Amino acid sequence: MVGGSGYTGAELLRLLAAHPEIEVVHVTADSNAGSSVGALYPSLGGAYPRVEYAAYAPGDLAGLDVVFLALPHGESQRVVPELVERVEHVVDLGADFRLPAPEYERWYGQAHAAPRLLDRFAFGVPELFHDAVVRGPHVAAPGCYPTAAALALAPLLVGGLVEPTGIVVDAMSGVSGRGRGLSAPSLYSEANESVAPYGLLTHRHTGEMEWALGAASGADVQLLFTPHLVPMTRGLLATCHARPAADRLSTASLLKSFRTFYAEAPFVSVIDEPPVTKATLGSSAAHVTVRFDERTGSVLALCALDNLGKGAAGQAIQCANLVLGLAEATGLPAVGMMP
Amino acid sequence: MVGGSGYTGAELLRLLAAHPEIEVVHVTADSNAGSSVGALYPSLGGAYPRVEYAAYAPGDLAGLDVVFLALPHGESQRVVPELVERVEHVVDLGADFRLPAPEYERWYGQAHAAPRLLDRFAFGVPELFHDAVVRGPHVAAPGCYPTAAALALAPLLVGGLVEPTGIVVDAMSGVSGRGRGLSAPSLYSEANESVAPYGLLTHRHTGEMEWALGAASGADVQLLFTPHLVPMTRGLLATCHARPAADRLSTASLLKSFRTFYAEAPFVSVIDEPPVTKATLGSSAAHVTVRFDERTGSVLALCALDNLGKGAAGQAIQCANLVLGLAEATGLPAVGMMP
Amino acid sequence: MVGGSGYTGAELLRLLAAHPEIEVVHVTADSNAGSSVGALYPSLGGAYPRVEYAAYAPGDLAGLDVVFLALPHGESQRVVPELVERVEHVVDLGADFRLPAPEYERWYGQAHAAPRLLDRFAFGVPELFHDAVVRGPHVAAPGCYPTAAALALAPLLVGGLVEPTGIVVDAMSGVSGRGRGLSAPSLYSEANESVAPYGLLTHRHTGEMEWALGAASGADVQLLFTPHLVPMTRGLLATCHARPAADRLSTASLLKSFRTFYAEAPFVSVIDEPPVTKATLGSSAAHVTVRFDERTGSVLALCALDNLGKGAAGQAIQCANLVLGLAEATGLPAVGMMP
Amino acid sequence: MVGGSGYTGAELLRLLAAHPEIEVVHVTADSNAGSSVGALYPSLGGAYPRVEYAAYAPGDLAGLDVVFLALPHGESQRVVPELVERVEHVVDLGADFRLPAPEYERWYGQAHAAPRLLDRFAFGVPELFHDAVVRGPHVAAPGCYPTAAALALAPLLVGGLVEPTGIVVDAMSGVSGRGRGLSAPSLYSEANESVAPYGLLTHRHTGEMEWALGAASGADVQLLFTPHLVPMTRGLLATCHARPAADRLSTASLLKSFRTFYAEAPFVSVIDEPPVTKATLGSSAAHVTVRFDERTGSVLALCALDNLGKGAAGQAIQCANLVLGLAEATGLPAVGMMP
Repeated sequence: MVGGSGYTGAELLRLLAAHPEIEVVHVTADSNAGSSVGALYPSLGGAYPRVEYAAYAPGDLAGLDVVFLALPHGESQRVVPELVERVEHVVDLGADFRLPAPEYERWYGQAHAAPRLLDRFAFGVPELFHDAVVRGPHVAAPGCYPTAAALALAPLLVGGLVEPTGIVVDAMSGVSGRGRGLSAPSLYSEANESVAPYGLLTHRHTGEMEWALGAASGADVQLLFTPHLVPMTRGLLATCHARPAADRLSTASLLKSFRTFYAEAPFVSVIDEPPVTKATLGSSAAHVTVRFDERTGSVLALCALDNLGKGAAGQAIQCANLVLGLAEATGLPAVGMMP
Repeated sequence: MVGGSGYTGAELLRLLAAHPEIEVVHVTADSNAGSSVGALYPSLGGAYPRVEYAAYAPGDLAGLDVVFLALPHGESQRVVPELVERVEHVVDLGADFRLPAPEYERWYGQAHAAPRLLDRFAFGVPELFHDAVVRGPHVAAPGCYPTAAALALAPLLVGGLVEPTGIVVDAMSGVSGRGRGLSAPSLYSEANESVAPYGLLTHRHTGEMEWALGAASGADVQLLFTPHLVPMTRGLLATCHARPAADRLSTASLLKSFRTFYAEAPFVSVIDEPPVTKATLGSSAAHVTVRFDERTGSVLALCALDNLGKGAAGQAIQCANLVLGLAEATGLPAVGMMP
Repeated sequence: MVGGSGYTGAELLRLLAAHPEIEVVHVTADSNAGSSVGALYPSLGGAYPRVEYAAYAPGDLAGLDVVFLALPHGESQRVVPELVERVEHVVDLGADFRLPAPEYERWYGQAHAAPRLLDRFAFGVPELFHDAVVRGPHVAAPGCYPTAAALALAPLLVGGLVEPTGIVVDAMSGVSGRGRGLSAPSLYSEANESVAPYGLLTHRHTGEMEWALGAASGADVQLLFTPHLVPMTRGLLATCHARPAADRLSTASLLKSFRTFYAEAPFVSVIDEPPVTKATLGSSAAHVTVRFDERTGSVLALCALDNLGKGAAGQAIQCANLVLGLAEATGLPAVGMMP
Repeated sequence: MVGGSGYTGAELLRLLAAHPEIEVVHVTADSNAGSSVGALYPSLGGAYPRVEYAAYAPGDLAGLDVVFLALPHGESQRVVPELVERVEHVVDLGADFRLPAPEYERWYGQAHAAPRLLDRFAFGVPELFHDAVVRGPHVAAPGCYPTAAALALAPLLVGGLVEPTGIVVDAMSGVSGRGRGLSAPSLYSEANESVAPYGLLTHRHTGEMEWALGAASGADVQLLFTPHLVPMTRGLLATCHARPAADRLSTASLLKSFRTFYAEAPFVSVIDEPPVTKATLGSSAAHVTVRFDERTGSVLALCALDNLGKGAAGQAIQCANLVLGLAEATGLPAVGMMP
């Protein structure tokens, strides 16, 4: 694992401690090199009593079956070229290999540093791109916002049930989505007892949502994404609005479409009641529901998940299972911690 | 005060303890009659050392200048007819006198019990209906969701800047908005670390939003309102989407319209940055902003407030100030508690 | 499982969903009979799609290897006599079978209803009473406060390192410790942003602490226990003070004694740093540390655990593993969820 | 005000916005110089629309009646010598002028930089040192932990009711007590859902507690102080244990002593029930209670307050009122925000 001292790294280590087929042999974290895992995360001290964060050196990873990258934005581009020569599979939890080069440049304002490697990475939402993930050889697992929006909207767009434009995604995330970096909005005393919208109009994950839903549905998807920070550690809810593109929709028919769409997905539950994030806490579960509003003639779709679970580390391991030829759900908890 | 043992009652008492012109002389609470205020709310014991909750008896209130009603839904209809004969002004914090009789029946599924009194109540958002509130003689102060949606959308609709249909209101409320009643979703262990959407498609406050914005703008407003419970005690954010009805909109022009619209409003701040609920905590402040999204051609407006402050008790006192001929902001805190 | 609709019941179901050797075949909950498990806890719907809460009927449980009781105080006494005739092992998470009859009567103010069965129950803290739990046949697993106090203080008292009287236990618990019952102090809006001491001088769990530590050490233990409710869902910290009974104590020597004492305990980590409850969240882990204060001549011992994990459901399953002849840690997570 | 960008500075500004006799004319904050108050704290933008943080320059403060210092540890020593020549009164919220030089050196490990000025500062707990504060001319207002411990224990020690040694103070603080500095333990995702003891045996505020209680009672006080971080923004509870030094104590007699002791204190309420921090939220109130435990022969005293209110900014303004000759409670809220 490369970059194991952030929150996604810690969650990968927590989940992998219970994984029957993947053994953690090396964890890097440049800024915490030499520190034990347990010193940063006392929760992990018992499971990894002898693991210390190492400085990154590609040779240390040579020959591994799979390497997880949990690095700050932009760093994966730097290390992937040397890693793909040395390891079987890379599962990147960063944003670097999720978008085609033009879309990357549009949303990130700079050219991609390793564009020729982009097509070796599958977009790691197995519910939408199962075969591509199985093929791999590498995977770029998207984060919490795009995953939740994609799971809520994909059955609608793939089924041609809603218009691909005029979509609204209002999403609420727990504070751990900001990572372990030190900044005022991440402080307890600032984030607690507050709802804080941010990134109005221009949040970069808009690009991933539009691309993924477009790739899955074949349509030219355009949406407005507004993220909100809410006072909880984990959890993410996407509340999505779209205009119908088909006649005679009903809540019952939409729920049925969703159930068909996710029939083979081990972690997606289509439920009748509104999904609550807590039902997914600590797990890889995603809960979705959908409504057709006769009164206003619009479609409402919601998805709840754990931003560090299905929205990050759980999804990365789900993808790793697939590229390694394991059963998709191997070693991953599907039951949220409630209460 | 009638119904002083719930959360809005407690907040009224907290705020009135610092009000220079209103003295609390009688507080009823049938279910807690005989209990001291301080037994239920130790915070209030020092300010009201000798106040006990009384059983409601209309004669006890005869001759008062103003009576606040903070009663469960449906009870105001029962007591208002006998109160308006005995007191100068009634400020009702419940839903009973906010809507005209047909709209009331549509959203509440039953006929109004005192329809002839409805036109003696002003809709208590002074920023939209200032003169009506001053005239009174009585006021029906709306709650947190309609107030926030109205403050975010009124400048757009009154100015004819957006279409009156196809509006989306996604709102997030602290748990105190559910009141002090005992129910599983109000339990700490259920509400904490969770975002929970509820009331999908059919939440009753939709009617108040549509009516208030329609009355203010003259348009036939239709919107889809989706409330979410978020893990905080107080605070409310409304994130609103609308389609432009005018050419050449820009974020700058919209902000300017908002600043003009709220130039005389002592508690509404139009700000450039996204509003956060914590900035309004414990106060009567409401923070709003607006954006025009060139990319998707849509308008985004947001409002943050304290659901018990500007969204309930603070607004009721603001209205009481006006019907009593006092300065609108008398005795009300305008600075939120941050951190 | 009898009484599966409360929080300990839900946590048992969450943990047992991942247990390789125990299969849940029957779950009762009189007040929720007929409801599906997923209706109360959406988190569990996926793992138990066909499980409905049944009304309790002892015949339905006949022949089971182990039955967990997660009932309100006093109800275990009623059902245990008929259950011990029908099932191999009972693991009771209630308080009814933890104390000898005289101590029970002293702390609970009434005679025990089934005193002759008391000696068939082991006190379910395997770290202190391993052999008794293995023998069973039944187990009374104590709750979060006594478990944490016992784990913090046992090495000191068993080793004769501190005086058995004059002990102070100040403990802080998450709100889920109050269970799913509806009461004002359990409401989010009351518990959030507040520390609330309660049960001053007389909390019933004092009796279990004194009895368990006395039974383990042979001394006549007397302590003052002060519980505090803190605003979090899960987690429990016991901060314990005692006077030294031996010369030449030091923090280093005490830590060494603790490490020896817990050498075989799979879930207890003796750590150098102060334990934080979050490191144990969702797991069966308990973290303890100890200090000798030269300045004041006193001993400070602390224990952190998850009140629903090691403090309830995790401990009950740990005991069930032992009475069933399984490895003590079978199926139980040892890594806390951090962040 | 010097150092107005931290949390105590923000709370001073919030409280002073409602103070009828003190006008804020200058606010410094070296690290945020040039920024508007509202940019850091949107809550304050409305009340201080034209105030920008200035770089500190002593000449800018010349002639002021009172200057509040809310600086990081050690910085007051640097600026006080030049300020006392220029302003009437200094109220320091830092730790620099609270202890006599030897105690300062003992707990802070370095010599005091301005020892000759120490006796010009009163220890700013008016409930214990009223006359000294009135005399001033300057005041060193202690923080939340020493204030709470002093208020809980002073009536016992001054009255000779408990032994001055063997005292235990276990205290729990909200995260804002750590200030606005960026550090991992202050992050939401680390502090939330966790109780974290820290500073075991050696926390510096021990020295202030011992000194203040010793100065008030004439005894040589020794205590063990253990602070705990709990997941809330504000609030502080001190749970204190002491051994009786008098015969025939009872809870009733102790409560009576406390009521006598605090008869003239406008912000201290002696209550029968256990104090909860939320009852004091946002105010200058402190709630205390006391118990005598017959069973273990010990005394338990508790104090709840808001760490930024009575524990910091509220107390500083209370002291400023006294040195300025105003009524002690001028402009300070006494009602906590509940819920």
